[in-house]
Amino acid sequence: MNSFGRLFRIQVMGESHGEFVGVVIDGCPAGLPLSAEDFSSDIERRKGGVQKGTTPRQESDFPRLVTGLFQGKTTGAPVTILFANENVRSSDYEKQRAIPRPGHADFVAHKKFGGHEDFRGSGHFSGRLTLCLVAAGVVAKKLLYGIHIQASLIEVGGLPTIEAGIDRAVAEKDSVGGIVECRAEGLPVGLGEPFFDSTESLLAHLAFSIPAVKGIEFGSGFASAKMTGSTHNDPIVDSNGTTSSNHAGGIVGGVTNGNPLVFRLAIKPTSSTPREQSSLNWETEETENFSVKGRHDLCIALRVPVVAEAILAIVLADLMLLEQRISRVTD
Amino acid sequence: MNSFGRLFRIQVMGESHGEFVGVVIDGCPAGLPLSAEDFSSDIERRKGGVQKGTTPRQESDFPRLVTGLFQGKTTGAPVTILFANENVRSSDYEKQRAIPRPGHADFVAHKKFGGHEDFRGSGHFSGRLTLCLVAAGVVAKKLLYGIHIQASLIEVGGLPTIEAGIDRAVAEKDSVGGIVECRAEGLPVGLGEPFFDSTESLLAHLAFSIPAVKGIEFGSGFASAKMTGSTHNDPIVDSNGTTSSNHAGGIVGGVTNGNPLVFRLAIKPTSSTPREQSSLNWETEETENFSVKGRHDLCIALRVPVVAEAILAIVLADLMLLEQRISRVTD
Amino acid sequence: MNSFGRLFRIQVMGESHGEFVGVVIDGCPAGLPLSAEDFSSDIERRKGGVQKGTTPRQESDFPRLVTGLFQGKTTGAPVTILFANENVRSSDYEKQRAIPRPGHADFVAHKKFGGHEDFRGSGHFSGRLTLCLVAAGVVAKKLLYGIHIQASLIEVGGLPTIEAGIDRAVAEKDSVGGIVECRAEGLPVGLGEPFFDSTESLLAHLAFSIPAVKGIEFGSGFASAKMTGSTHNDPIVDSNGTTSSNHAGGIVGGVTNGNPLVFRLAIKPTSSTPREQSSLNWETEETENFSVKGRHDLCIALRVPVVAEAILAIVLADLMLLEQRISRVTD
Amino acid sequence: MNSFGRLFRIQVMGESHGEFVGVVIDGCPAGLPLSAEDFSSDIERRKGGVQKGTTPRQESDFPRLVTGLFQGKTTGAPVTILFANENVRSSDYEKQRAIPRPGHADFVAHKKFGGHEDFRGSGHFSGRLTLCLVAAGVVAKKLLYGIHIQASLIEVGGLPTIEAGIDRAVAEKDSVGGIVECRAEGLPVGLGEPFFDSTESLLAHLAFSIPAVKGIEFGSGFASAKMTGSTHNDPIVDSNGTTSSNHAGGIVGGVTNGNPLVFRLAIKPTSSTPREQSSLNWETEETENFSVKGRHDLCIALRVPVVAEAILAIVLADLMLLEQRISRVTD
Repeated sequence: MNSFGRLFRIQVMGESHGEFVGVVIDGCPAGLPLSAEDFSSDIERRKGGVQKGTTPRQESDFPRLVTGLFQGKTTGAPVTILFANENVRSSDYEKQRAIPRPGHADFVAHKKFGGHEDFRGSGHFSGRLTLCLVAAGVVAKKLLYGIHIQASLIEVGGLPTIEAGIDRAVAEKDSVGGIVECRAEGLPVGLGEPFFDSTESLLAHLAFSIPAVKGIEFGSGFASAKMTGSTHNDPIVDSNGTTSSNHAGGIVGGVTNGNPLVFRLAIKPTSSTPREQSSLNWETEETENFSVKGRHDLCIALRVPVVAEAILAIVLADLMLLEQRISRVTD
Repeated sequence: MNSFGRLFRIQVMGESHGEFVGVVIDGCPAGLPLSAEDFSSDIERRKGGVQKGTTPRQESDFPRLVTGLFQGKTTGAPVTILFANENVRSSDYEKQRAIPRPGHADFVAHKKFGGHEDFRGSGHFSGRLTLCLVAAGVVAKKLLYGIHIQASLIEVGGLPTIEAGIDRAVAEKDSVGGIVECRAEGLPVGLGEPFFDSTESLLAHLAFSIPAVKGIEFGSGFASAKMTGSTHNDPIVDSNGTTSSNHAGGIVGGVTNGNPLVFRLAIKPTSSTPREQSSLNWETEETENFSVKGRHDLCIALRVPVVAEAILAIVLADLMLLEQRISRVTD
Repeated sequence: MNSFGRLFRIQVMGESHGEFVGVVIDGCPAGLPLSAEDFSSDIERRKGGVQKGTTPRQESDFPRLVTGLFQGKTTGAPVTILFANENVRSSDYEKQRAIPRPGHADFVAHKKFGGHEDFRGSGHFSGRLTLCLVAAGVVAKKLLYGIHIQASLIEVGGLPTIEAGIDRAVAEKDSVGGIVECRAEGLPVGLGEPFFDSTESLLAHLAFSIPAVKGIEFGSGFASAKMTGSTHNDPIVDSNGTTSSNHAGGIVGGVTNGNPLVFRLAIKPTSSTPREQSSLNWETEETENFSVKGRHDLCIALRVPVVAEAILAIVLADLMLLEQRISRVTD
Repeated sequence: MNSFGRLFRIQVMGESHGEFVGVVIDGCPAGLPLSAEDFSSDIERRKGGVQKGTTPRQESDFPRLVTGLFQGKTTGAPVTILFANENVRSSDYEKQRAIPRPGHADFVAHKKFGGHEDFRGSGHFSGRLTLCLVAAGVVAKKLLYGIHIQASLIEVGGLPTIEAGIDRAVAEKDSVGGIVECRAEGLPVGLGEPFFDSTESLLAHLAFSIPAVKGIEFGSGFASAKMTGSTHNDPIVDSNGTTSSNHAGGIVGGVTNGNPLVFRLAIKPTSSTPREQSSLNWETEETENFSVKGRHDLCIALRVPVVAEAILAIVLADLMLLEQRISRVTD
């Protein structure tokens, strides 16, 4: 469903072309200073229209903090953050209602919800919902004193530089995918709950809620499968558990080992490509060629790093509360 | 924690060298015929000692069905399945208590549980717990009429044939990793619950509870990141949603689209390699060379396919109940 | 925390004197027609200012349906309903900040949330939050075709007529309690999930989230304790399970038996009484006499029947989904 | 379903006449010393056959601690406790299969589970399952240093002395009900999680999982409904929150206030009465007179106090972990 987390628990709601998208954060410790300004930087990083390759849609994306705050601090009650949807052109979508866009959720949503789904801009399946994750991530990050989280795009369209990858997309008039790497440093040993709530399990769970993610790996990940044990094992070199290599990506037995946590996400190319495509019109039952209208990202992966940071922060905040390393009342 | 699932819910318990490992299945529909024989095939597939490359440890692995059955059928009450632990040689582990084995959970478990963890054979972190997943998977599979699930090992030690990969391991006297691919056919459209409980999220969550898994990808997965949208998008060619390619691996917007569901798991090399390794002795605080004693798999990946099938079946049973495609009383 | 339910799941948020109170309904089936008008009747029943004995605070209590609806129907995505808080006089509360009102959550909230709680009008502990329950109840009731739910106040201030009880309160210038009885007819046999999620357990859980509830009983309830088995047992008289008496209140073994479900709630007197009281000023550490200012109900129980109906409807909607007696797509 | 709790989480399983009943405790802190002897006293208190009025069934009720312990202490992994079922006479039940016993779950279980339920001795609905609660309660109590919990039977068959109530039952050859009062002292201020997980909500939830409980009240409970606010409100008299009366039963706003927590349970008369009763035979569809054979308690309430203590301890352990007042590693 639309909630996640045991102690630091988020509930998302909203559709791309409805009145709001939003998130409720339940279980946020009391006493945390929080204001709209805290969100600016991360929301800006997620925003389209800034770089070549991202959508010109210019939502204000201003966070309205409507519950759970008093005198500038969290109260311990649920924190609700709403974002108004602006600048929507729904008629773009009405026209192609009967033609499910390949790679999009149009077809499955129609079947699952019996035709009642809000199809405009992918509705509740929209990447706009990641704004809720980013907002929750901002709150989570503030709880993680001394932990440094940083994600970046390390590959675009199969090329190791973003510039080159985007140039390829623009030249080919086609969307491209990419790979995002995310790291956290300063973690304590012991985060992650066997058997099912390992740090890897929780992160992977949240990661696949980000539209367009099709793979996740930790540490050496898929490359591990080609290695031998004597190469892959990370020797422990001091009593803090520091290892001389980090093939494990900072997680052993599903539990953080104090070394940098590292994971990578595979982002598929934006489904909405400028190229002409074909699909089945479910009214006429005939295949039609069509182009996706509207303003879309050539490379949605450009917007993912800050979302990857957010999900990591959300998971860590939950696990830190579970391990009693964050207090329920902060000051 | 040690439970997973919303409607078809599993709780695992036990340690490698304790009295039992076991699983409670809560929410299993009433009226399902079930006997110990149903488990033989899958348990056999998971068992060591059969093939070159797997451990000679020969547990009987006989499933004791101790609750939730009456007159050979499930009753709707929790089904408990226990496996006695036999043939354990705990003294092997006592000797190396102070030397955390690289790649194993020894160090993190010690820190997390304050030294109270059962360290023998990795205790609750042991791969033996996957027996519980396999058992739950057997029950889940029986609920999935008309759905065919099949996993296989497609790469060992970087080589595309299992034989060659194992030969490499034996020759190098080192453990190796591998890649497991799992598929399901015959799925309905519409399984998966936005925003957080997509089919991908639930599968990934469970997949990382399997020890040694370090990556998961769906459909084209990491290769998607190098593709363009016009190549990656799967055109819909009929009103059932059949697509002419399957880069999405049968899941769009986190929801099954009726095409074959495909995922792959990256399995790291067995941490217990025959090679000499070094680690820090936490009593002497000096680095020591040591060899892992005991009977271990050279390639744990050999045992993973049936576990991968199990987690897929468990997730699908849960989602099918949610979608009301499985009845709570079967006949 | 602030969410409840397995399949029909509600999340509440907000404070009495903040910007909004609201509720997110996650898991509501798609295709249910819903408009603000649907809420009028139940919201009106809950509202103060109508009858002698209830508060003159006149919120508009207009439900803003901001997510999860499209073309007048639910979409299957979370439904968010917000209520703006109006007509608040926070300064009334500022003055008495250091004097925890007896019977109110002031003292415990202050301790639990480290002084960061929003104390105005009891903040998140306010009875205003029951508006969220009523709103969710309206949606739930619409899902329960053929089930009739009705609650009423059967005792006020120890007197069996409401009029007399309120007159007593007015005459004594003191607040009074009451007893609410709630019934549902038309239920199927079999709702309720052993061992922990019996219909009684779920209803009792939700009932005690209603401020001022201090007891709940089903069927003959506390009177049962004085009965003998041969008197209390309800004989089954036909193959539908109809019983000739209903001491069980329609629930046996925690599961509905098809007879009318009956429960009663004990409502304590409104904590804010017009009478002068004493409490400890936590700044001066001296006991002070004080009067509660502001507009308060003499008998909060007057507002509870519609809330009792709401919690019953919410629990039944969840259990009906679990029993697959409500479809996930309605039409 | 059959699990309960957020951090201190219990899963129960088993049937009256199956091989075992049992409980898994997930989330129990590591390092807690635990042995079978710890359970003796509470299990003995729950046992039948000791006093006039309780059943002569003499199970050994010996707790087998089969997972989660190492060297006499908990490890942080799930603790599993099994109780073998002995001395069962199932044929007693076979004979009356088609006649649902009034007051028992026979009829609803049959309908809900499609006839697949284990009907022997009420199967999974049996009071024997409370043995699992008692066992979990023993573990929980050990975590609650400095908190004193005590329950007692304060009324039997409508009479304020147990002796007199039982004598009435024996004389009338009929079963009787009773009232159990439970208290906890030494609680911190602040346990209980608004809005839905108040201490009252959680306790009531668990209380109604005890077979035969038909009502619960806190503090003055139903008597509150007849009181005025100035009488009911408990004045705070010192800075610890001590109140000069305790009508609230130690819980205000759903949160503990540091005063004694007090609740009472209404226990209906044992459904199995020695008296002849009538019910509908669902094969012949005719009403039959019958007597309940087998060994049954005349007053099941006699066995409830230790179960009431258990549920209170279980809830408090969970809330204490949530409030970070119990460490995840104890020593």
